[in-house]
Amino acid sequence: MQAWKDYQAQNKDRFLEELLELLRIPSVSARSEHKEDMVRCAEKVKQRLLEAGADTVEIMPTAGHPAVFGEKIVDPSKPTVLVYGHYDVQPPDPLELWDSPPFEPVIKDGKIFARGACDDKGQFYMHVKALEVMTKSNSLPVNIKFLIEGEEEIGSKHLGEFLEANKEKLKADVILISDTAMLSLDTPSIDVGVRGLSYIEVEVTGPNRDLHSGVYGGAVANPITILAKMIASLHDENNHITIPNFYDDVVESTPEERFEMAKAPYDEKEYSTDLGVKTLWGEKGYTTNERTGIRPTLELNGIWGGYTGEGAKTVLPSKAYAKISARLVPNQKSDKMTKLIIDHLHSIAPDYVTVKASEHHGGDPYMTPVDSTEYKAAAKAIETTFGKAPIPVRGGGSIPITALFESVLSCKTVFLGFGLDSDNLHSPNEKFNIDNFYKGIETIPYFHQYYAEMKG
Amino acid sequence: MQAWKDYQAQNKDRFLEELLELLRIPSVSARSEHKEDMVRCAEKVKQRLLEAGADTVEIMPTAGHPAVFGEKIVDPSKPTVLVYGHYDVQPPDPLELWDSPPFEPVIKDGKIFARGACDDKGQFYMHVKALEVMTKSNSLPVNIKFLIEGEEEIGSKHLGEFLEANKEKLKADVILISDTAMLSLDTPSIDVGVRGLSYIEVEVTGPNRDLHSGVYGGAVANPITILAKMIASLHDENNHITIPNFYDDVVESTPEERFEMAKAPYDEKEYSTDLGVKTLWGEKGYTTNERTGIRPTLELNGIWGGYTGEGAKTVLPSKAYAKISARLVPNQKSDKMTKLIIDHLHSIAPDYVTVKASEHHGGDPYMTPVDSTEYKAAAKAIETTFGKAPIPVRGGGSIPITALFESVLSCKTVFLGFGLDSDNLHSPNEKFNIDNFYKGIETIPYFHQYYAEMKG
Repeated sequence: MQAWKDYQAQNKDRFLEELLELLRIPSVSARSEHKEDMVRCAEKVKQRLLEAGADTVEIMPTAGHPAVFGEKIVDPSKPTVLVYGHYDVQPPDPLELWDSPPFEPVIKDGKIFARGACDDKGQFYMHVKALEVMTKSNSLPVNIKFLIEGEEEIGSKHLGEFLEANKEKLKADVILISDTAMLSLDTPSIDVGVRGLSYIEVEVTGPNRDLHSGVYGGAVANPITILAKMIASLHDENNHITIPNFYDDVVESTPEERFEMAKAPYDEKEYSTDLGVKTLWGEKGYTTNERTGIRPTLELNGIWGGYTGEGAKTVLPSKAYAKISARLVPNQKSDKMTKLIIDHLHSIAPDYVTVKASEHHGGDPYMTPVDSTEYKAAAKAIETTFGKAPIPVRGGGSIPITALFESVLSCKTVFLGFGLDSDNLHSPNEKFNIDNFYKGIETIPYFHQYYAEMKG
Repeated sequence: MQAWKDYQAQNKDRFLEELLELLRIPSVSARSEHKEDMVRCAEKVKQRLLEAGADTVEIMPTAGHPAVFGEKIVDPSKPTVLVYGHYDVQPPDPLELWDSPPFEPVIKDGKIFARGACDDKGQFYMHVKALEVMTKSNSLPVNIKFLIEGEEEIGSKHLGEFLEANKEKLKADVILISDTAMLSLDTPSIDVGVRGLSYIEVEVTGPNRDLHSGVYGGAVANPITILAKMIASLHDENNHITIPNFYDDVVESTPEERFEMAKAPYDEKEYSTDLGVKTLWGEKGYTTNERTGIRPTLELNGIWGGYTGEGAKTVLPSKAYAKISARLVPNQKSDKMTKLIIDHLHSIAPDYVTVKASEHHGGDPYMTPVDSTEYKAAAKAIETTFGKAPIPVRGGGSIPITALFESVLSCKTVFLGFGLDSDNLHSPNEKFNIDNFYKGIETIPYFHQYYAEMKG
């Protein structure tokens, strides 16, 4: 549509400015000191949705941070698309590794550097601007609803009850989410699967107080040593996870599926050079793309205990802690896997320590069938603006709420992601390419158009 | 001596008050923000030494924190005792585990609670007050020198060059140190050995930046997992240390020596109940007293990496760190052992990470022969004031500078410690029993008297 193209071209600088303004709000959901920033961010999202042409927008309270809901209903007989995104961001630490402050966006080499630039402010904002493009040119082909929540980075704790309580309001035919990556602008792709998540914190207690490591060392179990032994035992020499029954529910991909997956461009040397490692690590018998796509994993996200400051302290600590998370694949269920991991950690705890493992949050894995209308509309939209068909890939990340959407709202989700794996999500120097931002705004209206045609 | 007893009885409350004043100065040598507190503390020590009767006292600069040197020379033909102690203290963290602020001393149940109460302010201050007792009653039987340094808790980094540069000034016949514990006031004991120390920090680097654990998890080595595997491999299933050649230089105690050691009172149930553990841990084939006395050990003093804050963050970190220290026994040499451990850590580092292990500080083990004049004078002093002979024991801690004293000043060290193992050295709620403080002041003059007699 020429009208869409023209409108975007005339307003692109303002679109970018508005995004930068949003990125300046430190909406870190995990930190209680940012509670007011969360509210401020939700209000800004509301304002922008109204300006973009939404009929009504509400800030809806939850037991945690509020969610923003808005809608533009053009014709009840037309299909309805629910756009989901999140305005909260990951904590920015370690701060010292950022080249510029995380909440003072900087543009360099065509990239926006800021916490949330890609995950997910930059991506959900493409939908706000796509709505504006379509309403201002009077060409919105579907009804659109927006649900922009504030707790995605802390496990969407209250989304389940929110969906249940607002089932009617959120009723839609498809969920559209831009919170994933594509291979590149030259090799567009669509994530057809996201992994599930089980996130566990473990506390190991040895002696009841910190001890002098000279006076007591060698005579009482050191909780760091024991925790290390426990962690070390979780992967065998082939990097298989050793927790009994861990792989029981994994649907093994067929040789055909693996053959198709292997077509995605991948250069091991480039991949390891980008990460700065000599050798890659992973489960024996699988390629890198398989390890991050179709296989479950167990990663240490954090560890701490004893003296961690400057210099030396000869302490034998009372406690040591770790944060451990598993990525899950179909048909592993998060609740079951979380229990399995927690039970295992308790079972391998030796007698001379006390182990307390507890759950942080989780979510089930999800897949979009490639033969569904939802996927086909997305693929055609990509083909229209990129000039080539997207490759369907299995993504490594987790969007735990997709399984929830399917069970509560009974509709499929399609992932129309415009990020890149190199965008440093959850890391210092998170970025989003400006070209990807604009390409997303250009592509999204076509999804709505094709989806309306295919459903109609 | 009745005069000593009377003087102490008349001044005991003031002695205690003066100690509390010293404990209020947060002289934490490891933290640069306490640099001025260190100077303030050194000045207070100087003032008190002068008041106690020292002829001259100087604050002597080093490349780090200053040392306090003072002396009282009664007769050059008499033997000279050099009292060594340290006015610096361990960092007080974790602060939240203290029942009262670490630098606001509190007296409860006859105990002084404060950082440094026992280690070493309370103990070296006994010597300052013993000097006062002897000078005020004109009965100092020896020449006394004091060296109270400010860097013991950070490995006495500059003491070696300080001793070399001030050899003449520090010349003495024996070094007397109160920085160890005795079994109890009912079962007095003297440490005849202290262990050596090798302290190492290890940094494991995986990918060159923090990564999203979903996008990259499973495909690149997690430095926490690798560090845990490395740590886990350092002890075998019998809790022997696996580092090749680690035990090569250990002088095995004879069955007779072990039989003598076994006479020290020890109740396993009481020991483990005090520590709050169900089962004790340690090297197979050795008793608890042997594990902390005659055997070398390897302890984890700290570990950190990834996200350690509130809530959950799905990060695959770039780096993980640990602080590791070994306690050494005769004839293990610190330099050699430190190199052995560092080399081993590098050698077991797998290809997919980079390991950088470096030295913090160290010191050689030391033993006082029980048939030496020095030991005999100390034992007789204890017998005089306690009414029973002390048990010679091998202590688990380290006083790395004793080996240095022997090599540079060519004289023996005797440990006349009045602390208790339960004094929470290096831990929250460090304490020192007031009775032990007074008993020390009472006993010390007898050491000088007997030492003068035996040498004379």
